[in-house]
Amino acid sequence: MSDVRVIIQRDSEREERVVTTGTTAADLFAGERTVVAARVAGELKDLAYVVADGQEVEPVEISSEDGLNILRHSTAHVMAQAVQELFPEAKLGIGPPVKDGFYYDFDVEKPFTPEDLKLVEKKMQEIQKRGQRFSRRVVTDEAAREELADEPYKLELIGLKGSASHDDGADVEVGAGELTIYDNLDAKTGELCWKDLCRGPHLPTTRFIPAFKLMRNAAAYWRGSEKNPMLQRIYGTAWPSKDELKAHLEFLAEAEKRDHRKLGNELDLFSIPEQIGSGLAVFHPKGGIIRRVMEDYSRKRHEEEGYEFVYTPHATKGKLFETSGHLDWYADGMYPPMQLDEGVDYYLKPMNCPMHNLIFDARGRSYRELPLRMFEFGTVYRYEKSGVVHGLTRARGFTQDDAHIYCTREQMGEELDRTLTFVLDLLRDYGLNDFYLELSTKDPEKFVGSDEAWEEATETLRKVAEKQGLELVADPGGAAFYGPKISVQAKDAIGRTWQMSTIQLDFNLPERFDLEYTAADGTKQRPVMIHRALFGSIERFFAVLLEHYAGAFPAWLAPVQAVGIPIGDAHVEYLQDFAAEAKKKGLRVEVDASSDRMQKKIRNAQKAKVPFMIIVGDDDMSAGTVSFRYRDGSQENGVPRDEALAKLVDVVERRVQA
Amino acid sequence: MSDVRVIIQRDSEREERVVTTGTTAADLFAGERTVVAARVAGELKDLAYVVADGQEVEPVEISSEDGLNILRHSTAHVMAQAVQELFPEAKLGIGPPVKDGFYYDFDVEKPFTPEDLKLVEKKMQEIQKRGQRFSRRVVTDEAAREELADEPYKLELIGLKGSASHDDGADVEVGAGELTIYDNLDAKTGELCWKDLCRGPHLPTTRFIPAFKLMRNAAAYWRGSEKNPMLQRIYGTAWPSKDELKAHLEFLAEAEKRDHRKLGNELDLFSIPEQIGSGLAVFHPKGGIIRRVMEDYSRKRHEEEGYEFVYTPHATKGKLFETSGHLDWYADGMYPPMQLDEGVDYYLKPMNCPMHNLIFDARGRSYRELPLRMFEFGTVYRYEKSGVVHGLTRARGFTQDDAHIYCTREQMGEELDRTLTFVLDLLRDYGLNDFYLELSTKDPEKFVGSDEAWEEATETLRKVAEKQGLELVADPGGAAFYGPKISVQAKDAIGRTWQMSTIQLDFNLPERFDLEYTAADGTKQRPVMIHRALFGSIERFFAVLLEHYAGAFPAWLAPVQAVGIPIGDAHVEYLQDFAAEAKKKGLRVEVDASSDRMQKKIRNAQKAKVPFMIIVGDDDMSAGTVSFRYRDGSQENGVPRDEALAKLVDVVERRVQA
Repeated sequence: MSDVRVIIQRDSEREERVVTTGTTAADLFAGERTVVAARVAGELKDLAYVVADGQEVEPVEISSEDGLNILRHSTAHVMAQAVQELFPEAKLGIGPPVKDGFYYDFDVEKPFTPEDLKLVEKKMQEIQKRGQRFSRRVVTDEAAREELADEPYKLELIGLKGSASHDDGADVEVGAGELTIYDNLDAKTGELCWKDLCRGPHLPTTRFIPAFKLMRNAAAYWRGSEKNPMLQRIYGTAWPSKDELKAHLEFLAEAEKRDHRKLGNELDLFSIPEQIGSGLAVFHPKGGIIRRVMEDYSRKRHEEEGYEFVYTPHATKGKLFETSGHLDWYADGMYPPMQLDEGVDYYLKPMNCPMHNLIFDARGRSYRELPLRMFEFGTVYRYEKSGVVHGLTRARGFTQDDAHIYCTREQMGEELDRTLTFVLDLLRDYGLNDFYLELSTKDPEKFVGSDEAWEEATETLRKVAEKQGLELVADPGGAAFYGPKISVQAKDAIGRTWQMSTIQLDFNLPERFDLEYTAADGTKQRPVMIHRALFGSIERFFAVLLEHYAGAFPAWLAPVQAVGIPIGDAHVEYLQDFAAEAKKKGLRVEVDASSDRMQKKIRNAQKAKVPFMIIVGDDDMSAGTVSFRYRDGSQENGVPRDEALAKLVDVVERRVQA
Repeated sequence: MSDVRVIIQRDSEREERVVTTGTTAADLFAGERTVVAARVAGELKDLAYVVADGQEVEPVEISSEDGLNILRHSTAHVMAQAVQELFPEAKLGIGPPVKDGFYYDFDVEKPFTPEDLKLVEKKMQEIQKRGQRFSRRVVTDEAAREELADEPYKLELIGLKGSASHDDGADVEVGAGELTIYDNLDAKTGELCWKDLCRGPHLPTTRFIPAFKLMRNAAAYWRGSEKNPMLQRIYGTAWPSKDELKAHLEFLAEAEKRDHRKLGNELDLFSIPEQIGSGLAVFHPKGGIIRRVMEDYSRKRHEEEGYEFVYTPHATKGKLFETSGHLDWYADGMYPPMQLDEGVDYYLKPMNCPMHNLIFDARGRSYRELPLRMFEFGTVYRYEKSGVVHGLTRARGFTQDDAHIYCTREQMGEELDRTLTFVLDLLRDYGLNDFYLELSTKDPEKFVGSDEAWEEATETLRKVAEKQGLELVADPGGAAFYGPKISVQAKDAIGRTWQMSTIQLDFNLPERFDLEYTAADGTKQRPVMIHRALFGSIERFFAVLLEHYAGAFPAWLAPVQAVGIPIGDAHVEYLQDFAAEAKKKGLRVEVDASSDRMQKKIRNAQKAKVPFMIIVGDDDMSAGTVSFRYRDGSQENGVPRDEALAKLVDVVERRVQA
C-alpha cells in the first residue's frame, strides 16, 4: 500500500495529511458526527468516496447549505422507499431538496389522504431506524434501462441525460456526467432494499437523518408541463436536530397565524374579490383607516423633508413608454394596450417616473430649484403572471410611495446620504428596526452611462451605506442597466427578511427625456435622477406590517384604538361621552353597546386586536374614572377620564405599542 | 272689411280685441319698439303676419329667449349679405342663432382674415343703417331650386326638407313645413338686396338690430361631417342694447382671463401633456398643494360626518360591470377592454359604485351598521369623445369624491336631509354661496322599481330640497332610470352656473348586487342606496374654484400663503427664520431670496396671486416686526412677528380671503 497525500481544508485552515490508499472521506472525518459529505476538488462527494493523491478535501457539515440539501435529498429517498413499500404500484417521479425541505412526485391512482401521509411518515421512521446504507453505483444507460424498466418516468430521465434543464428538477436525478444509481442497502445483510436513479451525494446511512416531518401533498404535472400526466407530490421537511425541526414548525405555525390574507379577512381589513380579479384588492373601512394613517404620516414626514406632491393619471399613450424605453424592455410586465381615438394605443402605467419627468420638463428649471424632490402616491398596474400573484405582497395593482429626486451631480452625495437616513428613520417609525443594506453594482455586460459616472455613483452609495453602520451586503453585477442601487432589507418580528426601500440612481431617463436645468453659469446641464420608494408599495408594506404585528397594530395605526366596554346598560352613555371627547382629540374610540355580556365584549375586542379597552361600571361613573385594560390583560383601575384620554393621546403620538 | 276677433296674451293677462281684416301683429303691438315678433297659436311669426279670427297672439320681446334668437338669426342674415356683397364668390352654408350669438358658414377659397372680419362688420353696420326689410315668401321646391341655382349647399338643403336633423342646423333653414325664402328688401325702393332660404321668423327690419359684434372665425365641415367640404364659419354676437353687448364682451374678457387652462399654466398648477393624452392631466407641485388641501378638508369633514373611507382599484374584470349593468347601458362611455389571462376582459372603471357594493357585500351586515356611508376619492376613466374634452372640466380621467350611503327605507328621509345640508355647507366652506336646486323626477317611459318607491323617494327629496329655502327647479322626466335625483347648481363669481353636487337614489344596484342586511326582526332586507358626489370630480371642482377665484385663492387653499420680501440681503435670514416658524404652524411661507429688486419681487408675488407679502427692512428687524401687505396693495407696517403669524393662522383657519 502506497501513501496518499491529501489536503484537508477547513474554513481558512489547510492541513496536509498522508493516508493509505483506499482511505475514504469518512475515514478522514471519523468521529465527526455532523460531517455528512465531503467536497473534493470542488465537487460534492459521498463520505464513502475514496480519496486520491493530491486532492483537497473539505468536510460538509449537516448545517451548511450543502449539508442541508444532502440531508433533505436523502430524506426524500427514504420517503420514496416508504411510499413504494406501502403502495407498490406507485411509480417514481423526481424528488429534489427545496427550501427548508424536499418533495417527491409519484404516479398513483388516487391522491394521498392525510392518513396515507401518516402511514408513510411512520414507515420512514422505521427505515430511519434500520440504518440503511446509501450506496452509489455507476451504471451504463443500458443497464439503467434494464434495472428501471418498471419506472417509466426514470426511463424518460435516462433519455434526457445531460440535456435536462434545472427547472424541472431532472438534473438532480441524472446530471450531466456519469449515470449513477443509489441503492438503499440493509445495515446488517447488505441486501438491496430500494434504489433510485440519482446523482447524489447522500448521507452515509438513514441514521444520519436527525429529524423530519411530512407537511402536505399537492398535485403537480410531470416535469411542470400541463401536457404531461398529473402526479401526486408529497412535501416534507428535515433538520439537523429535533429542536431545529420544532423551531421550524413553530415558525410555520406562527407565519400561518400571521398570514396577511388570513388576518385581512379576520379583521375585516381588505379583500381581493373574485369579481374584480387576481391581484386587485379593495380596502374595507378598517383597512382603509390603517392605510390612510400610514399614508398621512409618510406624507407629513415627506413634506417636512422638502418633498413636493404631484398627481398623475393611471393611463397614458404608449408614446410615453416609448420615450422612456419601458415598451422595449418592460412590455411583458405591462397590461395590454387599449386602442382609443382610432388607433392610438393607451397603457396602464407600470411606473410613475416617466410622468414625473414630464412635470420636471413642463417648464424651464433653474439650479436654484434643485434638489427637486417629487413625490406621488402613484397607483401602478403590472401584469404579474397569475401563478405568482400573492395577496398584497405580489399584486397586479398597487400604490407606490414613489419619489424622484432631480439634483446636480455635486448634490448627489449629500442627497443620497440624507435620503438613506430619512428612509431608515421612517421605517423605524413604523416599527421595523432590524436592517441590512444591499449594494447592487454594475453588470459589466449591460449598462448605460460612462464608467466614470458609475464609479462615482457607486462609491457615493457605498460611502453613505457604510455611514449607517449597518451590515452591507454586496450584490456585484446586480444593478439594473441604468444605475447602481442601495436596497434596505428589513427583518420582521419572526425574523423574515423583506426587501423594503430602494434608492436607485438613473443615468438613463434624464437622457431619454432630455431633462435639463440652467446652471449658475447659464449653461444647460443634465440633472442626476434618483428613484426612491420607501415602502415599495403601500399594499405590500401594509401586508408586511400586518404580519409583523400579527394584526395587533400599535395604537397610532390601529383602526379602533380603544373599545369602551360598559359593565351594564347604565354605563353606555358615560362611555359614549368619553368616546365623543376622544374623537375631538383625533382618537378612534368605539363603544360596544351591543346586548353581549361584558366577558363576551372583552373577548370580541381581543379578537379584533384593539390596543386598549376602557371598562366602566358604577364606581367609575360616580368617581369620573375608567378602568384601563391593556392587550396583555393587565388593567389599571380608577384612572380619571382626562388622564385616560391623555394616556391614549400620548401612546398614539409616540407611536408605541402601549 | 269684416271684423277679426283676436286675443292678446301677455304673461297671464288676456285681452280680447276686435280689429279689421288685414291687421298684422305689428299693428297690434304698434309703438312697442321692444316687440320683435309674435307667437300666434303657439307658433313664432314675423310681425308682418296677418292675424286671423279667433287667434291668440302674444308679443315676443327682444330680450326673451325667443326674441334673442330672432335678433341673432336676423343678424346672421345681415352678416351673410355683407359677406356676399364683399366676396361675391362666397357660397352660403347655414347660419343659425347659438348661445349668446350666431354664426354663418361660407364656402370661400381661403379663410377669412381678421381684416376681412373688420370689413364685414363695417358692411353690416352699413346694412343695419339701411333699414332693409326682412320679407317672407312661400316658394315651391322647384321655384326655390331655380332661384338658388348658384347656392349648391342651399340646393342640398331643399332636398333634405323635413328630414334634416336638428344637429346639423339644417332645420333652421328648411324646417318640416312649407318652404320659405326671406328677402332683404331696400327700405325705400323695396328692391331685392339679398335673399336666403329660411324658416324664419325675422325682425321687421335691420334697424331692429341694436348692437352686434363679430367674434372670430373657424373652419367647420359642411353639416358637421368630415366627409364633406370644409367651410369657413364666422361667429358673431348680438344684443338688445349696446350696454348688454358691452357687458357681454366684458364677461367674455373676464371669463377668458379666468380660463382655468390659462391660469393653470400661468400659475404652474397643472398641465395636460400631449405625450399622455387628451383629457389626462398631471398636477404640478403647486396645483398638487391646492388639490391636497381640498381633499384633506373634505376628508376631515366627511370623517366628522361619519363616512368611512375605502380604496378600490382602477381596473376590474368586465364581469363586475355586467353585474352592475354598465356594460349594457354605459359601454360607449368606457375605455375599451384589455384582455388578460387568456381571454378575460378587464376594463378601467367609469364608476366606483360596483366596487363599493362588493365591500358592502364582503360580509353580513346588520341594521345596527346602517346608515353605512362609504367614501372614496376614486379615480375613474371615461371615454369622452375627443371633441368634447375640455381642460379639467370635461376630462377622460378624474377623481370622484364619491360616496355611497346604504340605509334602511325608514332612514332615507333623515339621511337625505342630512346629506343635502352637509353638501351645501361644505360647498360654502370652499367659497361658493349662490345655489339653486334641481329635482329630476321619473321618466314614465323608462324606470326600474315600484311606482310607490319612486313616489316616496321623490316626495322625500322634494321635502328636503324645499327645507333648504333655495330656489327649486323641476326637471320632470329627467331622472335616470334607476332613481330620482337632486342636483345642486352653484353660481360662480361672474354669474356662471356649474352643476356641482348630486344626490341620487338608486333602486337598481341593490337589486342587481342582491345587497341585504339583517333587520332587527332577523329578516333579510334590501338597503336603500344613495350615490352622492359633492364636487363631482376633484379636477373639475379645482377648475371651477380656479375660475371662481381667478387664481387668487383664499390663503387656506393657496399653494403659497405668503411670500417674504426682504428689502435688502441683510433681511433674508430674518425672513427665513419667520418662514421656518410659519412652517411649524403648518403655514406655507416662502422667501424671495433672489437677486431681483424689491419692486420686482412684489410684482412677482402679485403675478403668482399670493395672498400676503411679508416685507422686512432694517426698522422691522430691530423692532422684531414685519410689514404685512395685502393682495389689494394695502399695507400694515410694524406688525410684531407673533401677531403676523397669528394673523396668518387665523385667516387660514377661518378659510377667508383676508
